[in-house]
Amino acid sequence: MSKFLVDKYQTIEPYTPGEQPKKGSLIKLNTNESPFPPSPKAVEAIAKAAGDLNLYSDPECKKLVDAIAEYYGVSAKNVIATNGSDESLAFCFQAFCDENTPAAYPDITYGFYKVFAKLYSIDSKVMPLKADFSVDPADYMGINATVFLANPNAPTGMALALEDIEKIALSNPENVVIIDEAYVDFGGKSAIELTRKLSNLLVVQTFSKSRSLAGGRIGFVIGCEELIEDLRKIKYSFNPYNVGALPQAAAEASIRDTEYFEACRKSVIDAREYTVEQLLKMGLAVLPSCANFIFVSPTRISGQEYFAALREKGILVRHFSAPRVCDFVRVTIGSREQMDAYLKATREILEERR
Amino acid sequence: MSKFLVDKYQTIEPYTPGEQPKKGSLIKLNTNESPFPPSPKAVEAIAKAAGDLNLYSDPECKKLVDAIAEYYGVSAKNVIATNGSDESLAFCFQAFCDENTPAAYPDITYGFYKVFAKLYSIDSKVMPLKADFSVDPADYMGINATVFLANPNAPTGMALALEDIEKIALSNPENVVIIDEAYVDFGGKSAIELTRKLSNLLVVQTFSKSRSLAGGRIGFVIGCEELIEDLRKIKYSFNPYNVGALPQAAAEASIRDTEYFEACRKSVIDAREYTVEQLLKMGLAVLPSCANFIFVSPTRISGQEYFAALREKGILVRHFSAPRVCDFVRVTIGSREQMDAYLKATREILEERR
Repeated sequence: MSKFLVDKYQTIEPYTPGEQPKKGSLIKLNTNESPFPPSPKAVEAIAKAAGDLNLYSDPECKKLVDAIAEYYGVSAKNVIATNGSDESLAFCFQAFCDENTPAAYPDITYGFYKVFAKLYSIDSKVMPLKADFSVDPADYMGINATVFLANPNAPTGMALALEDIEKIALSNPENVVIIDEAYVDFGGKSAIELTRKLSNLLVVQTFSKSRSLAGGRIGFVIGCEELIEDLRKIKYSFNPYNVGALPQAAAEASIRDTEYFEACRKSVIDAREYTVEQLLKMGLAVLPSCANFIFVSPTRISGQEYFAALREKGILVRHFSAPRVCDFVRVTIGSREQMDAYLKATREILEERR
Repeated sequence: MSKFLVDKYQTIEPYTPGEQPKKGSLIKLNTNESPFPPSPKAVEAIAKAAGDLNLYSDPECKKLVDAIAEYYGVSAKNVIATNGSDESLAFCFQAFCDENTPAAYPDITYGFYKVFAKLYSIDSKVMPLKADFSVDPADYMGINATVFLANPNAPTGMALALEDIEKIALSNPENVVIIDEAYVDFGGKSAIELTRKLSNLLVVQTFSKSRSLAGGRIGFVIGCEELIEDLRKIKYSFNPYNVGALPQAAAEASIRDTEYFEACRKSVIDAREYTVEQLLKMGLAVLPSCANFIFVSPTRISGQEYFAALREKGILVRHFSAPRVCDFVRVTIGSREQMDAYLKATREILEERR
């Protein structure tokens, strides 16, 4: 740190991304990536766009925004594209929180919310999840804060019902409610339909997970025209060309390739159901997941020990050290073969410690 | 605008990017893009990386940062890569300015500085350029502000000597001086060598102009390790995966292809010298440019009229309405053929109005 860094950032603790090991050295089930490559149509679109990179990308992301709008049956005015959904979330923190309007989110959720709050000098109302790790909608009724809810939540994978989201939004008419649906395609229900009638509801999604474009960096937000305009104001005051020409082309081709998308997501859901069944048979505890990951407690050994033992066997998962969740590890759902390797390793670890 | 947008952004005026017309309809000399496609090696690297986009990009951008460090003879710890150089600049405003530390920059310069200042609630010390449109280094001596200087400056194209930059940095030991070198490869002298001895100097560069990757979105900052660490703190608190896998691959291949780079930049410089010579012969006024654009005053007609007449003839340039510069237009240096078309249009416009 230099002596020039402004005071408010001296104590900031940045987000720690999951480890990115060298390709091939480990089975990587730690950052909720898709085990499947991007749609061949996305790869083709990228190759086609590469030769024109001397020209700026379209700051409006028109073709991509049109494709997203078409897919979800909304207008292009209801959509903004960003450089990954982290940027979407950051813009929401900037636009809708300040010293008078704190952010509210669960104690156990995507670890970035508290970092954004610190980055923008925003107070947080941190609401503990219930003992069963579910969100208590009552906690957010009339909370007088900008609400951020990951749905399904991470790292639990558990989902909140749309009726509860609607009630939360209706009870906070003076605040925006942001639903972070990074994992919704794997079994959650999207709140996008609610944005038609609720002018204080925004839905954030990403192409990183269900569309196999984590390295492409494309996120988007859907909501009423005025809220999207607000986010556009932030974007154009920060980085008008925030989404490059290649991600725009890749994401557009990807969202139009529904067949490939449906096949990939079905494979992941099938592999998840299979994995959960096997783990339960072995006596492990698994939270009910609607996501492309599961939150698993080995019960007989600590989460840290389980994490380390898996790693020793070449399986990389993610462990969080916070007290309430330190007995769990988060396991990304990969291919059926990867899950079999993970299950085999788990079986061995538990047998070795019998 | 919604009623939810926080007060401080109600009056923000976002940056207006140059018009992006449909391909082929106009000769586009308005956004300082390269007339040449990206290096074939960059295009190849993109195609190679596309199939792995289901995995996250390297948040450290290691290969790219190593290539940049090697090219400029610095250490990887002296380099951070960003999603275009606008993001580099935004991070600098965030890290090194606050309510106690204003930003200082010229009245006529890259229009985004004042937008960043507003975005982050930072006061500005706006220093008028001299009558000849040059920066007066004396204005920035001991100014007690974070200094932002585009060098060469935009939209004038005029450069400040390295000795002056050094003096400015030395006279502000408690503040950071940021040199925005978006256009330096076209005839300016880079201050990167000064960052070895000055711990309060940062240099921002981009792959958008001289490396034909405007649509790729890659910028970077070079400076002493502690300052780069500060910027990394901001990055990891905002968007750790800010640079996608494709831009990383493209930029790395591009900076390693020195032959292509040198050929492109020489062509642009030659076309600029040729264009300036022709314009001066026709009696127009042109500021001395070290950039890939020129700032041209038709003298006998207004800048607005010249801009409109060029557009009517299919040549798109950029006009700024601020009083001091409204008699000029900024013309990007394209290919020799494009410049001949621009010169022909200019000749006709002036003859039609004789």
